[in-house]
Amino acid sequence: MSNASTTPVRRQAWAALDQHRRHIGDAHMRQMFEDDPNRFERFSLEDCGILLDYSKNRITSETLRLLLDLARGSQVESWRQRMFAGRPINFTEGRAVLHVALRNRSGRSFEVDGQDVMPQVQAVLEQMGRFCEAVRSRRWKGHSGKSIREVVNLGIGGSDLGPAMVCQALKPYADGPRVHFVSNVDGTHITETLKDLDPERTLFIVSSKSFTTQETLANARAARAWLLDRMGDESAIASHFAAVSTHEEAVRDFGIDPANMFEFWDWVGGRFSLWSAIGLSIALSLGMDRFQQLLEGAHRMDEHFRTRPLDRNMPVILALLGVWYRNFLGAASYAVVPYDQYLRRLPAYLQQLDMESNGKRIDRRGCRVKWDTGPVVWGEPGTNGQHAFFQLLHQGSQWVPADFILAARSHNPVGEQHRMLLANGVAQTEALMRGKSEQEVRREMEEQGLDRERLEALLPHRVFPGNRPTNTLLVDRITPETLGALLALYEHKIFVQGIIWDINSFDQWGVELGKQLASTVLEELRGRPAPRQHDGSTRALIDRLRKGFSSS
Amino acid sequence: MSNASTTPVRRQAWAALDQHRRHIGDAHMRQMFEDDPNRFERFSLEDCGILLDYSKNRITSETLRLLLDLARGSQVESWRQRMFAGRPINFTEGRAVLHVALRNRSGRSFEVDGQDVMPQVQAVLEQMGRFCEAVRSRRWKGHSGKSIREVVNLGIGGSDLGPAMVCQALKPYADGPRVHFVSNVDGTHITETLKDLDPERTLFIVSSKSFTTQETLANARAARAWLLDRMGDESAIASHFAAVSTHEEAVRDFGIDPANMFEFWDWVGGRFSLWSAIGLSIALSLGMDRFQQLLEGAHRMDEHFRTRPLDRNMPVILALLGVWYRNFLGAASYAVVPYDQYLRRLPAYLQQLDMESNGKRIDRRGCRVKWDTGPVVWGEPGTNGQHAFFQLLHQGSQWVPADFILAARSHNPVGEQHRMLLANGVAQTEALMRGKSEQEVRREMEEQGLDRERLEALLPHRVFPGNRPTNTLLVDRITPETLGALLALYEHKIFVQGIIWDINSFDQWGVELGKQLASTVLEELRGRPAPRQHDGSTRALIDRLRKGFSSS
Repeated sequence: MSNASTTPVRRQAWAALDQHRRHIGDAHMRQMFEDDPNRFERFSLEDCGILLDYSKNRITSETLRLLLDLARGSQVESWRQRMFAGRPINFTEGRAVLHVALRNRSGRSFEVDGQDVMPQVQAVLEQMGRFCEAVRSRRWKGHSGKSIREVVNLGIGGSDLGPAMVCQALKPYADGPRVHFVSNVDGTHITETLKDLDPERTLFIVSSKSFTTQETLANARAARAWLLDRMGDESAIASHFAAVSTHEEAVRDFGIDPANMFEFWDWVGGRFSLWSAIGLSIALSLGMDRFQQLLEGAHRMDEHFRTRPLDRNMPVILALLGVWYRNFLGAASYAVVPYDQYLRRLPAYLQQLDMESNGKRIDRRGCRVKWDTGPVVWGEPGTNGQHAFFQLLHQGSQWVPADFILAARSHNPVGEQHRMLLANGVAQTEALMRGKSEQEVRREMEEQGLDRERLEALLPHRVFPGNRPTNTLLVDRITPETLGALLALYEHKIFVQGIIWDINSFDQWGVELGKQLASTVLEELRGRPAPRQHDGSTRALIDRLRKGFSSS
Repeated sequence: MSNASTTPVRRQAWAALDQHRRHIGDAHMRQMFEDDPNRFERFSLEDCGILLDYSKNRITSETLRLLLDLARGSQVESWRQRMFAGRPINFTEGRAVLHVALRNRSGRSFEVDGQDVMPQVQAVLEQMGRFCEAVRSRRWKGHSGKSIREVVNLGIGGSDLGPAMVCQALKPYADGPRVHFVSNVDGTHITETLKDLDPERTLFIVSSKSFTTQETLANARAARAWLLDRMGDESAIASHFAAVSTHEEAVRDFGIDPANMFEFWDWVGGRFSLWSAIGLSIALSLGMDRFQQLLEGAHRMDEHFRTRPLDRNMPVILALLGVWYRNFLGAASYAVVPYDQYLRRLPAYLQQLDMESNGKRIDRRGCRVKWDTGPVVWGEPGTNGQHAFFQLLHQGSQWVPADFILAARSHNPVGEQHRMLLANGVAQTEALMRGKSEQEVRREMEEQGLDRERLEALLPHRVFPGNRPTNTLLVDRITPETLGALLALYEHKIFVQGIIWDINSFDQWGVELGKQLASTVLEELRGRPAPRQHDGSTRALIDRLRKGFSSS
């Protein structure tokens, strides 16, 4: 796993961890808990409203010490400082990475190329505040004089997943217009969304930095046509569309008043942009005060990350555990299981955040990395997942580390259901860790009076190996602040892993080729001659689609 | 990868594949397409309205030949026959596995223990038909004499994912009452769902075979209380509740008229049950005719699977490709990417179908398997995924095989959007396969006139290794028939893999331990004394939750 191109310190740390892995081998967490009555106290942290229990991991104090050596050898502290200092750590694009500035509450300045960005950030926040106030107070009128009841965000990827997930997660706080999200270029998405909406009361937000994103612009044109079809008059556009973009000319050409264009900056990556004007739909739904609370929660986590020593630093700890499983114990994916129906889109959000950040294979020197980088991220809410994929988590041939997210209090208490939800979440982490030994299964089946033959046949199938790691992230309640902190926690975790893996977590060249080839294929589907050669499969699929599927 | 406990034939096939893997090594599919102009024709199949293009896989004819040897050596044909013959192939529970009987259109009988099950199947289908007709024609009245406009299915796992996914997928055909699905025990799920419903016009379906599933019964009690709160009278229950269950006594005690209880049988596993009365919400939404078309489509695929030789058998081919990647090329997961917004819950459905079936580690002899079994399954619709996790698919350090599902025609044509959707889907499979070489990137950047230094620095980051496999499943349109065929295709694929891995794909002992421990934890959260010892972590989490999170 070590690599000649890396620093000697890091090489040493990798080698030490590799050896340690062989040493602790299959040591069982059950035993680790028996051996150490203080394991929970040793391996848990609390800050920013989050209790992180990481004691159900396949680690000892020695594991953590070696992982922290790796972090130090990878200069995590210095890179962290560079990020906060606005240095161009997105090195392929020569950009700073400053989403932390978007939620800065400290009064400190954040400089990019010697210029403080905070005045711009404040100005856009104020612009958002005025706009939200106008819409939410019903002062803002649609073209026919009616106020706005529905907001449709048109955006994809980072311009969709973040605000859609947050609006869902914080629905108990929603007191503004209803919000809808259309992302997919599939006409079904916009058609189904507009079906029940009244154009006179609908406001669209076109969220595309460049104002050229294919999917978003196609949907924006469809929305524009839908509106005009019912309102008749081009001048209606200005009362029913706003934009989050930097391309003023294109925004104006579309018919949007530049006063309702909200800017963000090239030091805000798409997948880190919900804290910027991309969060406008959040602010419209919850109000600007709650959007500010979301930023505040994230800021508290930024301060935690920036100031805590590595060994008491939640994002660092989560990152190191991920590295341990990914690089030393061979886990290809991890699961995120929120025990909260409102958080059901959190796994999809983190999927982008993590996989687009760390799905890379070239290091800072331009060499192919010799170690594994970003994992696959997936998940569904509990308790649903328990009745679906948990079988594999418990008894599959591969094990998958999982993050369990629990809130002590519900926004919707119904009888004893929240207690049942929590009991399930906690019990699953226990079951995954403990497992159930052959001896325990045998005793239980004997007590049930199963006959010998059936008992022996069933026995192996009812054994649980256990030793399957989980983190538990427990909050009091999902509020704007705790959600902000939780999301920032994952952002910084992913940052730390990118540093350790020596990759650029902030570009996304991997989306380029598909786009390029799609425009070629589109031309051909339009019936134009092939501008380039294809392989036999692509050729055949295009031909089939050109002919109409049924024809053959 | 070979194992002494397995048959010699299979041992040989594994060894041959292992050697073959070393032989074809990193051979690039781009080259394979160049070498063979007939590769698409060789590696594609069409039946049941589905074109399966599997030519973009890392295989040669030799690979396939060896994989087919493995299938034969694993006696796939004989196991297939045993399934269709109603033999108890679910060997830990001693049950037949006969979801194929639920959609049998052949006039043939299906026997379990010498008895034809088809009369029962027909009887329940007829009962469903009468019930649907009554509700959909508005003859069925709620307690206050109003007809039903809303149906809420209360179920979890197999009693939820299947019908919820199908109702979503076939929404263009929905002409009955609106359908809603409540699964999670989290009170938020039922609270948010009931918010906008009128109890006088709402019908609940309690879907739980045993009528004891914790989550479902909790939600059913909540729904019952909500209804009674507004209707006052216990006798209202019978007009607003139906059940899919076999526990008549419990159903009656709940207040449901046994005439509105729909049965299914122990030879129908939960994750294969959407074809049974568990599909009642589908039939209510789409009408019984379309539900029958869904069954018809699945039946056509059953016949394909049952009668086609292994080398022209779609489920077998998909299964073998999965085995190739999982066991010989080390892929831990695969992605399902439907280019259709209506199919957005298909990945979650297949996640259960596959992971609960093949997330096992004990073979038929009761031994721990020595090879990898079921993969992790995950995915999101395209084009959305392209703006989220595709970065990792293209340039991550691990590669993930993916199934692309495309429909030539849309139910919602909007401008050119469907053509754009298809162009993207096809182009992504091309991009993943081809990649983009250093030479190609260099030429392109030179044409763009990038300066030398920047060019050299960027070059490696813009290279795509390619050789990343995909299957394309192309249908004319997502109809009840094609969806039925598609789902049956995956069911049989998973069955074949279970046979090759020598596991029982039809039990789910892995859900047991969590349930057991949850009831213990629940007692403690109620404030009762701990009935058993916990590890330090579980202990601390319970204590914290008992105290109320905020108190410390």
